[in-house]
Amino acid sequence: MTTLGVVHRNITRADRGATDQMARYGSATVHEAMGRVGLMKPYMRPIYPGAQVSGTAVTVLLHPGDNWMMHVAAEQIQPGDIVVAAVTAECTDGYFGDLLATSFMARGARALVIDAGVRDVKTLQEMGFPVWSRAISSKGTIKATLGSVNIPVVCAGVLVNPGDAIVADDDGVTVVPADWARKTADAAAAREANEGEKRAKLASGVLGLDMYNMREPLAKAGLKYID
Amino acid sequence: MTTLGVVHRNITRADRGATDQMARYGSATVHEAMGRVGLMKPYMRPIYPGAQVSGTAVTVLLHPGDNWMMHVAAEQIQPGDIVVAAVTAECTDGYFGDLLATSFMARGARALVIDAGVRDVKTLQEMGFPVWSRAISSKGTIKATLGSVNIPVVCAGVLVNPGDAIVADDDGVTVVPADWARKTADAAAAREANEGEKRAKLASGVLGLDMYNMREPLAKAGLKYID
Amino acid sequence: MTTLGVVHRNITRADRGATDQMARYGSATVHEAMGRVGLMKPYMRPIYPGAQVSGTAVTVLLHPGDNWMMHVAAEQIQPGDIVVAAVTAECTDGYFGDLLATSFMARGARALVIDAGVRDVKTLQEMGFPVWSRAISSKGTIKATLGSVNIPVVCAGVLVNPGDAIVADDDGVTVVPADWARKTADAAAAREANEGEKRAKLASGVLGLDMYNMREPLAKAGLKYID
Amino acid sequence: MTTLGVVHRNITRADRGATDQMARYGSATVHEAMGRVGLMKPYMRPIYPGAQVSGTAVTVLLHPGDNWMMHVAAEQIQPGDIVVAAVTAECTDGYFGDLLATSFMARGARALVIDAGVRDVKTLQEMGFPVWSRAISSKGTIKATLGSVNIPVVCAGVLVNPGDAIVADDDGVTVVPADWARKTADAAAAREANEGEKRAKLASGVLGLDMYNMREPLAKAGLKYID
Amino acid sequence: MTTLGVVHRNITRADRGATDQMARYGSATVHEAMGRVGLMKPYMRPIYPGAQVSGTAVTVLLHPGDNWMMHVAAEQIQPGDIVVAAVTAECTDGYFGDLLATSFMARGARALVIDAGVRDVKTLQEMGFPVWSRAISSKGTIKATLGSVNIPVVCAGVLVNPGDAIVADDDGVTVVPADWARKTADAAAAREANEGEKRAKLASGVLGLDMYNMREPLAKAGLKYID
Amino acid sequence: MTTLGVVHRNITRADRGATDQMARYGSATVHEAMGRVGLMKPYMRPIYPGAQVSGTAVTVLLHPGDNWMMHVAAEQIQPGDIVVAAVTAECTDGYFGDLLATSFMARGARALVIDAGVRDVKTLQEMGFPVWSRAISSKGTIKATLGSVNIPVVCAGVLVNPGDAIVADDDGVTVVPADWARKTADAAAAREANEGEKRAKLASGVLGLDMYNMREPLAKAGLKYID
Repeated sequence: MTTLGVVHRNITRADRGATDQMARYGSATVHEAMGRVGLMKPYMRPIYPGAQVSGTAVTVLLHPGDNWMMHVAAEQIQPGDIVVAAVTAECTDGYFGDLLATSFMARGARALVIDAGVRDVKTLQEMGFPVWSRAISSKGTIKATLGSVNIPVVCAGVLVNPGDAIVADDDGVTVVPADWARKTADAAAAREANEGEKRAKLASGVLGLDMYNMREPLAKAGLKYID
Repeated sequence: MTTLGVVHRNITRADRGATDQMARYGSATVHEAMGRVGLMKPYMRPIYPGAQVSGTAVTVLLHPGDNWMMHVAAEQIQPGDIVVAAVTAECTDGYFGDLLATSFMARGARALVIDAGVRDVKTLQEMGFPVWSRAISSKGTIKATLGSVNIPVVCAGVLVNPGDAIVADDDGVTVVPADWARKTADAAAAREANEGEKRAKLASGVLGLDMYNMREPLAKAGLKYID
Repeated sequence: MTTLGVVHRNITRADRGATDQMARYGSATVHEAMGRVGLMKPYMRPIYPGAQVSGTAVTVLLHPGDNWMMHVAAEQIQPGDIVVAAVTAECTDGYFGDLLATSFMARGARALVIDAGVRDVKTLQEMGFPVWSRAISSKGTIKATLGSVNIPVVCAGVLVNPGDAIVADDDGVTVVPADWARKTADAAAAREANEGEKRAKLASGVLGLDMYNMREPLAKAGLKYID
Repeated sequence: MTTLGVVHRNITRADRGATDQMARYGSATVHEAMGRVGLMKPYMRPIYPGAQVSGTAVTVLLHPGDNWMMHVAAEQIQPGDIVVAAVTAECTDGYFGDLLATSFMARGARALVIDAGVRDVKTLQEMGFPVWSRAISSKGTIKATLGSVNIPVVCAGVLVNPGDAIVADDDGVTVVPADWARKTADAAAAREANEGEKRAKLASGVLGLDMYNMREPLAKAGLKYID
Repeated sequence: MTTLGVVHRNITRADRGATDQMARYGSATVHEAMGRVGLMKPYMRPIYPGAQVSGTAVTVLLHPGDNWMMHVAAEQIQPGDIVVAAVTAECTDGYFGDLLATSFMARGARALVIDAGVRDVKTLQEMGFPVWSRAISSKGTIKATLGSVNIPVVCAGVLVNPGDAIVADDDGVTVVPADWARKTADAAAAREANEGEKRAKLASGVLGLDMYNMREPLAKAGLKYID
Repeated sequence: MTTLGVVHRNITRADRGATDQMARYGSATVHEAMGRVGLMKPYMRPIYPGAQVSGTAVTVLLHPGDNWMMHVAAEQIQPGDIVVAAVTAECTDGYFGDLLATSFMARGARALVIDAGVRDVKTLQEMGFPVWSRAISSKGTIKATLGSVNIPVVCAGVLVNPGDAIVADDDGVTVVPADWARKTADAAAAREANEGEKRAKLASGVLGLDMYNMREPLAKAGLKYID
């Protein structure tokens, strides 16, 4: 009856083109394009600034203080994947360091998103392997308990199914259900398209109040100016 | 009876010279110069390191998840202002991104201090627009509820009146009441003046115990040395 | 009966060679080498990235909002020491800034580890004086209450005796009891020794599953693969 | 493409008998019976002690500071249901008070589980309507934004599908997928069955070490006794 | 220039009748009556359940770990007052116990609201002296530093002026500016007046959807029902 | 070199009479009597109100999510002991429930103090077995990793040696080193002795300002009264 102790080898990954394209829009634009859903909680932070990636999720469910399944997950990685790791209870231990990162990179992983801690962060930055995590910690883990790979997991407050598209940058991590990937990429592209024009107007001193025609609805809502 | 739905267009800004001068002393020295008050809580952090600014406050009171009033605030910005945003309940949503920053910069704003979240932080750093916030989050906001602009607000534990001087750097954010600005700038300058001499002495190996004549009061208080 | 108001001038420092050697292994490897103990809680973070140091502990016990004993501690510093500061109750005030850092550096201190806040963090980075702390805060402190120097303290969840070896880097802070220093350095060196080989194998695509012979124990534990 | 603005009127509820039966085992035993999964995070606490309930989930997804959909959810309640409310971002506002509780009770709801705040908690206790929440707060909400009812939601770290069985008591909240309800109830009953005998043995002074035959595996693992 | 070291003996207290009347409406109704403002953060919790009080504020500003000014505040208490204590930095120490409570009660104080910790909570409950605080802690404080009495303070995120009306119950703490007290009491009374009728309707099974005429605006906003 | 995997069977317990006597003074008075040290962090809370106990410490060091050593600890309990449990990393799992409590009570334990979570809290209250913990959680634990029993541990920020006296009540938990027990009990008794007289004076309206002769030192420190 349990979901523990299982590895799904065949998963349906989100459309590759759509997934890859979303990296350039970033987590905020993609989240907006989906209708303001799909965001992990803001305690998920990059271990170093500047990385902006997208990829398809290989999921892994871990127990507190036990990273055994990370090695099992490594074998399921295909180029273009991002590993998304959840834990059955809150934990900040360092589940992942430079050795596992070397293995993940060799398999073609683009990043790790983990609702726990990682370590060797200086080396990970030198290697250029980005991680989003809830903590940084030297605390070691054991290898004693089974979890699962490629089952649905809840990571930092969001349901992630294996194969979903993940978009991560300095603003956070957005999860796009696999069968929404194409539509979401298109919607994000459309949002992005007219940002340049808006930015130019605002830079020239035009106010959002006028550009978005907010003055009338604000007045209707009762806004009063006092001199 | 409520304070919501109001925009004050005329506010009295702190003395410009005093306000501008305080940037170079930093938030800690200015806080000490006021008698150890006026500091926002330490959860307010810069979104990128190294910025050190001062300016006069344009305040805005927001509701959770609603950034409508940020556009209203933009119109009230004058060159040299810093926007200080409070929310009526705790919220980490991303109220502010690169488009609003473009507008704020066009109006002459020097920074944003917000007791909530912001997004597009990589772009904000590239634009050189500093923000102090409690969170970074891609979470989008709506535009449905009235707040107010240029009323007194409590931001990160400190009362901020419109026009107050704000000093922010990597150590935090200090608020100086507008009519204290000149005296505070002078007191901070005085503190700063003799720091160089102290630093030289300490660098040469003189102990604070001797430089500050602490040995006698420590002995009086009962300090015992054990060999 | 109290432990407050006491300064121990003679402490037994951990073996210098072993202590110095541990910097290059880092906090995670040393923690593993001791049997996965000795780590401070992960809320202890470096105020700037990249520093990696080791040294012998001079300990100081402080009261909330009072940094008087930091000056007393300064006199007890010898070259190669790291000051480890604990507080009798949770506090985020800024106990330490560039002046104290100048004094500590003049005495030969390599770093500060403090379960409270610090300030002047930009200057501290420019000076190259690393600090691990629970907070950054401009909040000033007073000089009114006695604490102690070089007594056993609990800092961020770990017992630190004066003279213990401290290893700190971007991953956290590890405490090595003084009389374990040599054995721990050796054990850490041994761990490090075969990391290069492992890394090369993993980089070539060998899986941890095979390199560590995990397939059989995983199967025994009941892991099931589903196609 | 969004999941917002939708109400599913027909949901498949977990087996009534199995669901009702689980109340007497409690959240911990049911969680164990499922293989140690399904628990909401421990920040979810009852607003008053002593309630122990089970029921079928009517789910609702809310926006921060907006409780409009709670009224929409009320209409979907059937006797024996427990309303499970999630929010798209972290929020502690008081979404629910005695009026909504009156309406929920009239519809036959047994409890509310909400990843946000509630108010009127003294009256709710007098009414005997139990709530598990992350906060208690007087903060009022608005009615401006659409969420959804009876879609899958993530509440306090756990995926809840409409119709799932919910078990809540002073220890926390466990979610049982609807089609696991019967098997889980049986497994929980089996666990419960031999607890009485164990308790009697332990009360008589028999040690768990002996009752569970732990001495040999402990010795094998290397445990050493020192006199 | 500082606000520290000052005691204001003459303060203007909110209208007594209006202040006393507000206790029966509670913190949530009064907060709504003011237009959804004035609430302290929800981390402020009663040390025992069931108390519901209102009174006029005597304010006190304290330093971390120092409760000297509580004794100064005691002298300024008049019957019907509630002491509101703020601290210049976050602190959880136990500033207040049964002796101070005895003194406060002798002076006619109705409660304490403190953004820090208290102790002797069992005795305080037996004495019937209610406290709202951010923490419970045995940690003792010293008497070394001046704060102030009856100056404006920020307590748990809200500005409190001496004389303001305070309403506190199990849901939280609401602050009513002194000159709003009468109007707020009236508005709260009006809200309360029609609650009984609403409750009766909801208890009879009428839905909020119909009672508040929400079906049309929900449909306009785009809500869709799916069978 | 590790401290894991060890059980010390012979420990020196604090003086029984002194230890037992301290229960009636409570955690705050005993903490003051020691010179304001020895307090666990205030996140340690009783699982039900009203218990006030003292006893001698049997210590246990656990790994995250693993309660195996609790059974080992049970055998080391003697009548009058309090079990003090620490974990090598932050964890809120439910390590302890009614079965272990039955065993602990059969061995004569008076309470459990644990820097982690517990469950079955309603039953524990019915059994009258008090627990102080950082969390309540249904999360189950495994039995796979060795910790130790009766070694020095750091629990909630305080060093606890086996045999130390523990005093716990609604205000928190205080640890008294075993060889301080008699002196501390005497000092606490002395503090308690003159509390009755003080309370009577304060109840009669005498101010602490006068009873403690604070007016002069306050004036000297610069306190100003303003009418």
